[in-house]
Amino acid sequence: MIDEAARDLRRERRRGRNGEPGSESSRRPNYRSLKNPFLPQPVLSDDQVAAIHDTALRVLEELGIKVLLPEARAILAEAGALVDEDSQMVRIGRDMVEAALASAPRSIPAHGGDRSRDLALELGSMTFLAGSGAPNVTDLERGRRPGTLAAFEEFMKLLQHFDVLHMLGPCIEPQDVDTRFRHYATGRAQLTLSDKLPFVFARGTPQVEDSFEMVRLARGLSESEFRAGAYCYTVINTNSPRQLDIPMAQGIIDFAKAGQISIITPFCLAGAMAPITVAGALTLQHAEAMAGLTLAQLARPGAPVVYGSFSSNVDMKSGAPAFGTPEHIKATLGAGQLARFTGLPWRSGGGSAANISDAQAAHETQFALWGSVLAGATVCIHAAGWLEGGLSVSFEKLITDIEALQTVAELCAKTPGDADAIGFEAIAEVQPGGHFFSAAHTMTRYRTAFYEPLVADWSNFGNWTQSGGKTATERATGIWKRILSDFQPPQSAAATAGVLDEFIARRSEEGGAAPVS
Amino acid sequence: MIDEAARDLRRERRRGRNGEPGSESSRRPNYRSLKNPFLPQPVLSDDQVAAIHDTALRVLEELGIKVLLPEARAILAEAGALVDEDSQMVRIGRDMVEAALASAPRSIPAHGGDRSRDLALELGSMTFLAGSGAPNVTDLERGRRPGTLAAFEEFMKLLQHFDVLHMLGPCIEPQDVDTRFRHYATGRAQLTLSDKLPFVFARGTPQVEDSFEMVRLARGLSESEFRAGAYCYTVINTNSPRQLDIPMAQGIIDFAKAGQISIITPFCLAGAMAPITVAGALTLQHAEAMAGLTLAQLARPGAPVVYGSFSSNVDMKSGAPAFGTPEHIKATLGAGQLARFTGLPWRSGGGSAANISDAQAAHETQFALWGSVLAGATVCIHAAGWLEGGLSVSFEKLITDIEALQTVAELCAKTPGDADAIGFEAIAEVQPGGHFFSAAHTMTRYRTAFYEPLVADWSNFGNWTQSGGKTATERATGIWKRILSDFQPPQSAAATAGVLDEFIARRSEEGGAAPVS
Repeated sequence: MIDEAARDLRRERRRGRNGEPGSESSRRPNYRSLKNPFLPQPVLSDDQVAAIHDTALRVLEELGIKVLLPEARAILAEAGALVDEDSQMVRIGRDMVEAALASAPRSIPAHGGDRSRDLALELGSMTFLAGSGAPNVTDLERGRRPGTLAAFEEFMKLLQHFDVLHMLGPCIEPQDVDTRFRHYATGRAQLTLSDKLPFVFARGTPQVEDSFEMVRLARGLSESEFRAGAYCYTVINTNSPRQLDIPMAQGIIDFAKAGQISIITPFCLAGAMAPITVAGALTLQHAEAMAGLTLAQLARPGAPVVYGSFSSNVDMKSGAPAFGTPEHIKATLGAGQLARFTGLPWRSGGGSAANISDAQAAHETQFALWGSVLAGATVCIHAAGWLEGGLSVSFEKLITDIEALQTVAELCAKTPGDADAIGFEAIAEVQPGGHFFSAAHTMTRYRTAFYEPLVADWSNFGNWTQSGGKTATERATGIWKRILSDFQPPQSAAATAGVLDEFIARRSEEGGAAPVS
Repeated sequence: MIDEAARDLRRERRRGRNGEPGSESSRRPNYRSLKNPFLPQPVLSDDQVAAIHDTALRVLEELGIKVLLPEARAILAEAGALVDEDSQMVRIGRDMVEAALASAPRSIPAHGGDRSRDLALELGSMTFLAGSGAPNVTDLERGRRPGTLAAFEEFMKLLQHFDVLHMLGPCIEPQDVDTRFRHYATGRAQLTLSDKLPFVFARGTPQVEDSFEMVRLARGLSESEFRAGAYCYTVINTNSPRQLDIPMAQGIIDFAKAGQISIITPFCLAGAMAPITVAGALTLQHAEAMAGLTLAQLARPGAPVVYGSFSSNVDMKSGAPAFGTPEHIKATLGAGQLARFTGLPWRSGGGSAANISDAQAAHETQFALWGSVLAGATVCIHAAGWLEGGLSVSFEKLITDIEALQTVAELCAKTPGDADAIGFEAIAEVQPGGHFFSAAHTMTRYRTAFYEPLVADWSNFGNWTQSGGKTATERATGIWKRILSDFQPPQSAAATAGVLDEFIARRSEEGGAAPVS
């Protein structure tokens, strides 16, 4: 009966009604600028949140954090921290943290290569990033293999294609490029293929300075213009527990001084690098994030810093990290409470420990995603394509996860609830046991009423079998291949190739820049 | 490094620490009795919810509903409804609906075969049911095939096994049993293999009376004891739009009179059997649910009725139903608002339109699940194993979805946030860059700190490949087979076989009971 009714609808369409302009109401939300529509969900009481914050300050004040970079220790000492140069331990007073929290911006305007790609990173806004930092890459046609620049470039095209991904990320480590030159290749790919906010690895000042220069060249910015706004970002991972290594500390300082964004993310796996309890892992995470934040604000008050959380748990039998677990979700919800306690924009982490794009991968990714959404994360990293706890990214999983992100994005659109949407007249028009396919209420809305899926196939078993009986993952192969073959970079991005290549050629001739460790 | 640390932990265990009793804190939530820990999420304003309720009453009052059963029309007319016997249209005044809402219970105690299986169906409690009503069944070993009694019985064993499934359901239609005797076979399977709340199809009074008698025999209840409490339930589907057919109307009356539970669920697919807008679909759903509720309360004031919602949308290109879509989630969230407006316990619907247990199936099922959880549904039907929009249930998907339900169940457990959980001393005990595997804080907690997965495999790619490289769905085959081969029914249930068989033999000899339509 539904099928017959659908035929009626097609007939109606052929009659030309669909050409009429006017009253059709539009569903389409702006995927490029999402506001989280959900109430943030707490897992801890307000008192407990305050106690975690307070204990984190005690950790910094009484126990301290090991800071391996002399320059960072000097900056912290200068501001009043108690530094033991022998042990490299730095004890940071709560007054210092409180001053840093006061100077850190609550809202960070981040500039893409086009105004429509600009972001406001603040509590309430919601951005998604694909899986990042994977040494390996996998797809159904070419199998699992070490990351290459070609795969990195392909991924950039896919990230550019989907508006629901808001920033670029270091999706794949291109292991076929020498580490002295790798940042040129990844910077070039990001800046010539996309107009979204690019990522820069904090692997020492020489590489960071090179990368900043590439952003300035691509965006046509003077040094002072660049320093006055945020045009790229990095992720700083502390070496939990309580340790900040040389490139990470240097990155905090370099990005702060340049006014660029640091996402300071302790990676606190409960039971391994952090206490086994959710509250304990959050306490350690909070202490380390506060230490990084303080260093950034001392390097330059007002520096754009995103509070970072990526606390999950390990399998206590094997020590293997796990994601999308109940503890991961709870830790993310608790991190959201801590972020709101401080008022800072913040990031969470998605992902899955599954080895292929199967039901486990989808479920874990969804749970991590909902944890982030319900925690009110400003930035959700690893939200699409991440497998093996980050050891690979999958072309197909990128596509199937993007469907999930688009579904969440659709939920950001208001649900009309006025008399016209309620539609008493439509209900009156259709007789008992009839159908609404050709009701006027339907005809004015059917083109945009519903989300149209990217990869989901809603055909019945017979039709699906006849058309090859492909899984969503198999269908995703066709989708990413089609996007890649049709891809056209934004003109503004493609036009930067000349000036970037000139810079890269000169710097390469000079020997490039080795990573600092 | 994590691997080394895990070895340390194993060594610690061998040293015997794990034998110590005492301070270990327990995570384990009681899966049999879940309270929804989430704040309900609104999609409509309070005014809009009131307007939908009001418009639904207008629909019943001004447009009416077609009621095909003369007895139902007579009951409604007797209470003041305006009935046109020619058209079978019944117009129900808002005073009648308001009286029904006043007499419907806010909390329904439902009795299983064991006290630990008793449920309190009310706002705030959360129960899950597997996929129901499928004509086909599928698994990786035997393929997709029409439902049989053997498959039904196997499914009952699996449903009984998992505490996170709270009631039984008519998972598979056993097409190899004549319809005159099918209710005996499905009733027997439910009552002899499980002590959970059984389902009874409303396919006419003769079958319903037979089924009630089987419940009374199995539970050892007199007729008056049975009528004084709820021992089974049915699902009533209206024929949207605005039509109540003979077996459904009869079911409402029969279940109400017997004090058994009716879940009154209009199946309002927006754009097809309901207006294309979420608010419009909800308005029609609400009107039909209110009509069913009113009939039930007239048949017996105080009859246990669950408000039902299963509103999703269709693909406007093909008319195919879709689930786990943005519109499905929004409709579920709105239904939760309407249920809270009335104060009634209510049901939602999960599921997926995917044809196999793939990434699409997992994502759609998750979205529908989160819609239900965030809407505060008392009963979430089709939460596990449902494929093809209900045309099949999958043994493997049942297992992978149960992992998702168990993850949600874990989130119902409180997250400890006291000083002991925050663990300042644990953080002090572990040196910078060290690990927490052998910290005292870890050792007292590691056995129960984290959820242990049912089917998820967190081993690394090498180990996973060596152990066969199986997908979660493939691993699920081994799990359901193991559960079936180890299955022991509850003694109390198995013990009912004799008395049930005697009844079934007698009734079969009498010719059974044909379904009424």
